[in-house]
Amino acid sequence: MDLTKLLKPKSVAVIGASEKEGFGGDVCRNILTYVKDRSRVYFVHPKRDQVFGVPCHKSILDIEDTVDLMIICTSQKTVVPLLRDGAKKGVGGAVVFASGYGEVGTDEGRANEKELIETGEELGIAIMGPNCAGFVNYIDDVQAFAFISEKRDRKGSVGVVSQSGQLCLSLMECPSMRFSYCISAGNGKAVQMEDYMDYLVDDENTKVVSIYIEGVKNTEKFAAVLKKAAQKKKPVIILKTGRSTKGGAIAASHTGSLAGSDKSFDAVLKKFGAIRVDDLEELMAMSSMMATMPSIPEKATFTSMSLSGGETGICADVGSQYNLEFPDFEPETLASLKEQLPSYATPNNPLDMTATLSYDEDLFAEALRTVMRDPNIGMVLVGYTLLLEIADPAIHYMYKGIEKVVKEGSCKPIALLPFAENTRNPEYSTKLFEIGVPILPPTVYAFKLLRYLSDFIEYHAETKTLELAPGKPASKNSYALSEFNSKKELEQYGVAVPKAIIAASLEEAIAFTKGKDTPFAMKIESADILHKSDVGGVKLNISGEEAVTKAYNEIMESVTAKRPDAKINGILISPMLKAGVEMIIGVNNDPQFGPMIMVGMGGVFVELFKDVALYPAPLNHEEALEMLKSLKSFKLLTGYRGSQPCDIDALCDTIVGISKYASENKDELKELDINPIFVYPEGEGVGVADALIVKYEK
Amino acid sequence: MDLTKLLKPKSVAVIGASEKEGFGGDVCRNILTYVKDRSRVYFVHPKRDQVFGVPCHKSILDIEDTVDLMIICTSQKTVVPLLRDGAKKGVGGAVVFASGYGEVGTDEGRANEKELIETGEELGIAIMGPNCAGFVNYIDDVQAFAFISEKRDRKGSVGVVSQSGQLCLSLMECPSMRFSYCISAGNGKAVQMEDYMDYLVDDENTKVVSIYIEGVKNTEKFAAVLKKAAQKKKPVIILKTGRSTKGGAIAASHTGSLAGSDKSFDAVLKKFGAIRVDDLEELMAMSSMMATMPSIPEKATFTSMSLSGGETGICADVGSQYNLEFPDFEPETLASLKEQLPSYATPNNPLDMTATLSYDEDLFAEALRTVMRDPNIGMVLVGYTLLLEIADPAIHYMYKGIEKVVKEGSCKPIALLPFAENTRNPEYSTKLFEIGVPILPPTVYAFKLLRYLSDFIEYHAETKTLELAPGKPASKNSYALSEFNSKKELEQYGVAVPKAIIAASLEEAIAFTKGKDTPFAMKIESADILHKSDVGGVKLNISGEEAVTKAYNEIMESVTAKRPDAKINGILISPMLKAGVEMIIGVNNDPQFGPMIMVGMGGVFVELFKDVALYPAPLNHEEALEMLKSLKSFKLLTGYRGSQPCDIDALCDTIVGISKYASENKDELKELDINPIFVYPEGEGVGVADALIVKYEK
Repeated sequence: MDLTKLLKPKSVAVIGASEKEGFGGDVCRNILTYVKDRSRVYFVHPKRDQVFGVPCHKSILDIEDTVDLMIICTSQKTVVPLLRDGAKKGVGGAVVFASGYGEVGTDEGRANEKELIETGEELGIAIMGPNCAGFVNYIDDVQAFAFISEKRDRKGSVGVVSQSGQLCLSLMECPSMRFSYCISAGNGKAVQMEDYMDYLVDDENTKVVSIYIEGVKNTEKFAAVLKKAAQKKKPVIILKTGRSTKGGAIAASHTGSLAGSDKSFDAVLKKFGAIRVDDLEELMAMSSMMATMPSIPEKATFTSMSLSGGETGICADVGSQYNLEFPDFEPETLASLKEQLPSYATPNNPLDMTATLSYDEDLFAEALRTVMRDPNIGMVLVGYTLLLEIADPAIHYMYKGIEKVVKEGSCKPIALLPFAENTRNPEYSTKLFEIGVPILPPTVYAFKLLRYLSDFIEYHAETKTLELAPGKPASKNSYALSEFNSKKELEQYGVAVPKAIIAASLEEAIAFTKGKDTPFAMKIESADILHKSDVGGVKLNISGEEAVTKAYNEIMESVTAKRPDAKINGILISPMLKAGVEMIIGVNNDPQFGPMIMVGMGGVFVELFKDVALYPAPLNHEEALEMLKSLKSFKLLTGYRGSQPCDIDALCDTIVGISKYASENKDELKELDINPIFVYPEGEGVGVADALIVKYEK
Repeated sequence: MDLTKLLKPKSVAVIGASEKEGFGGDVCRNILTYVKDRSRVYFVHPKRDQVFGVPCHKSILDIEDTVDLMIICTSQKTVVPLLRDGAKKGVGGAVVFASGYGEVGTDEGRANEKELIETGEELGIAIMGPNCAGFVNYIDDVQAFAFISEKRDRKGSVGVVSQSGQLCLSLMECPSMRFSYCISAGNGKAVQMEDYMDYLVDDENTKVVSIYIEGVKNTEKFAAVLKKAAQKKKPVIILKTGRSTKGGAIAASHTGSLAGSDKSFDAVLKKFGAIRVDDLEELMAMSSMMATMPSIPEKATFTSMSLSGGETGICADVGSQYNLEFPDFEPETLASLKEQLPSYATPNNPLDMTATLSYDEDLFAEALRTVMRDPNIGMVLVGYTLLLEIADPAIHYMYKGIEKVVKEGSCKPIALLPFAENTRNPEYSTKLFEIGVPILPPTVYAFKLLRYLSDFIEYHAETKTLELAPGKPASKNSYALSEFNSKKELEQYGVAVPKAIIAASLEEAIAFTKGKDTPFAMKIESADILHKSDVGGVKLNISGEEAVTKAYNEIMESVTAKRPDAKINGILISPMLKAGVEMIIGVNNDPQFGPMIMVGMGGVFVELFKDVALYPAPLNHEEALEMLKSLKSFKLLTGYRGSQPCDIDALCDTIVGISKYASENKDELKELDINPIFVYPEGEGVGVADALIVKYEK
């Protein structure tokens, strides 16, 4: 749906214009306060001749102009008839503040919402809301916002869409936030969150797309928008609550239990290089930082210049908590700094530049140039606590120094890093903003944001499979495949399963094993028995006719006694796999995002340390390798304590094969569990010891 | 040393009083600005009759009063003669701003510092500094501070000592900080950081002791002060840099490498229940929170009341990241809340109280009373973003509601929790401070602080051994004990080592093993050979005379060939231990804090996951158990996946024994490494498979 008439209207009608408190009054007040060119803004009220001195039309039909956008400030019952009137005037967008829809949770509310959505579709009107707070388009000076905020210039390049009006308002009130658009989407059932995101990713006035979302509604569109942003390298920063709620029922299988839906959301963002933040302060500060800097640093490497050793120590410590890189300076940099700093100072990265430099704009500028010239440095943090009241003049000299260097051009990105309380002097905040220097929150937040920034810099869209494979199961009921059948399905996707037969009789078992040296694994083969060991259904390391006979009989006796109900296909016999590094590969088909691939080390590593990687299918070899590298236990694969390096290539191929299987079977697959898979030394591949596939009924 | 005359003087002389910029001028300006009763404050300058209109003495000797404190604003060379004059007037404390001492790193500087310290000791004068920024005593209105700050009432109950003047100033400038004392200790070589801490822990006007320290100088005093604070339950909050520097040389042994000195510092604070924070913002906000609240919550359990679902979600998510507890409300609480909230709301903890309540002080107060009445709740967080400019009146009603409830008495602790940018309206900040409601920083910081608070609440001094055992090795050179001798030493402390002999000949080996069923371990016994396997010095699972003979000969041949230099005591023979859960116990004798006990799971758990616990010796059974419980892999000891629960009691006893051994041998022990120790099922104890003690030469 085209949102141009909604978000970038040439003419606007405020329906229910008023001077009172409430939607109508607040919208009018905002328009009169902020909108300079009001020549095509029309106030409409059936009973008023004027509002705040502005002439008022009785009905939208009386306006002698086409109207792009209706801002409907009246109650729920009036909305649909008003839309029908609007359509006659060419309206293509409407903001609906009224509540009384889906959010009230009644049948009536849901019916109202359905009617509203259908009316919008019928008339070709893009509807924001209902139950929303509206929006501001700061670029084209459009005010359709229902809350009053402090008067201030907020025009900038962050495009915000929020499902919460309260958070939207908080963002608008943050002194450092400067917007292209600020959209409070409300219920977001007509025009959806994904539609607004799409608009903002396309919009050339928006440098950073900043989102508060409660959940994804349209996965395909969500993925498409994130893909577009990734390819454009436009930052999408997302705050989504629900990390702590144990989403959905606990999956029965071992791997499934590790892959909750919120974890899937994380993995999806990782794939598309979108940034997920933890709270509103982070959303605000991250957006503000990325929008304010004239460019993204070329390298995710930092230096900080502070006035004291204590502050420098804090930078080193907190920086290292977030794995930020403070590379060593080049010898030339160190030599220059030694000349510039007082004799007692020892230059290093992070840099204690001493307070001396902060009282001399030229010395400060020269030190800034010196660290910027260092090829190892991607971004400069000026460590200084900017307070509301300026008692100490240092910031004056430092600002002048920064300004000089910025105006010389070819400057690397700079940010101001305070050590406490970001109660910032408005004069210097504005000055710094205007030369492209954001002010970060204090260090713990700041270095967390710089970690996000580093990840963004190091993300490369061209190496990723920028798609998801959400499935549509025909049923909620599911059934398990037997081990033999599970392995057979996987074998078609290049997964190395051992040669095996199902022996339907003792004779077949003996015939298959006869004359072979390798010992065999013998397991009951039945889709009805998931926990084979529990019913005496597994015998390992069996060699020779006598042992095979004994094992066969014992398994059959035990299983038929314990599970007389089970349909038994026979006994699965395969050569024992030699031991290797034990891993687990799992797939959980997320109802929203499709199959999620899970990889982890076998046994206690996964369970006690939660050392798993999760990534949406489909994926390529490089993405599989990234998954493995993200494990703390990755070293076990690279030749740990003198053992041979493992066949990581073969393991990646296996992961890719499983992801292909999962994607192609997205509508049927419920979950898949390979536990364990043995990884052998380089060149010797992998071996799948056990596999279980659970499918949805068709 | 008594600091009363220094920090709580009855009469003060400013030496070098001046109207110019600089120490003398700034101190005078601060005194004239802040000190109301100046009847016993004397300005001294050899060439001035008056300063800012205040009459000036030519010398301290001219003052017709005794003088407790000299504030020496003059240069290094003048200081010692001035102190001698001061002593004649009864001076007991002096602030020395001058630099030119140890901090310049020259021999001359060090000599100056030595002279200064000795002069102070000789004259009985407690010297603050040199190279410091002085102090303010807000309780008794004493100004001896060399930096100018914004004029504001800062009297409160946080006692600050900082080794950095810059950080001290930043703390003073934080709008929410209110102090009893603010001390910039400078070099801190005369009166030391530990002395100031001791003073503040004793001081009844100081509720919270807030420290920036670069390193501990006097371990005994540091421990004694922390012990006193722990017993009084007075919070000591410490910012110490140096987390990221790889302190000291990498210890040779495996366990030593994990126990850096900064990690020891962490462990020491844990023992004494002091709070370590990560940056200045945390130091500031944590101190401010604990000082502002009228009392510490009785339980480390929280509720938050926010205006929207989004904000409530952020509380739940970020709170859970820091393992904060939001317990379920009691049914009565839920029932009451249901009556108070709008019909569409679903009360829960954390609580979305809806914006409705924020515009009605009585409704809000009633909801606040209701959640406070809930026995599960220890503290209430009011989730609301207080901005600099108030555009929305909600805070007015909420403040009134809070005030009402506070004034009724018997109120649980409350804090205001903003979601973004802590640019706080000064009027409401002050109002809230005055009724004991701190304003926290935004959520990521806030919940981190509440985690510290929870740990503080849950700390119980009476269960700890509140001492350290710092050692004084006679030499830096060290030597290893053989396995036999290492185990013999430990055996005396109740550590379960297997019965063993050193066979000096094959005959002895045969005689010891003869007729016994258990297999034996045979290992070369030599203090010169630390890596016995590498030289073919280990044979395991040896049974019967023939095997014993073969093993004996092979070991001897291999070792004498590979290490002809080694002094060999014979072959250590002991029964093979049965396998159990493999753990590691280590001791690293920290040069500052004494023996640090390290416990971890054997093998990759320690190396890949750094899953170790570190704690200072000596320790008791309960502390040993706490160490084990802090391991992620603790579950492996409690009966994991159907295995039997382990003999945790015996393991704790062993840890206590080792800690006793380490404490009693603190001057000699360098490190100790038990790797592995097997932990057996309950009632079956533990078994030490290998042990290595390294001692300092005497």
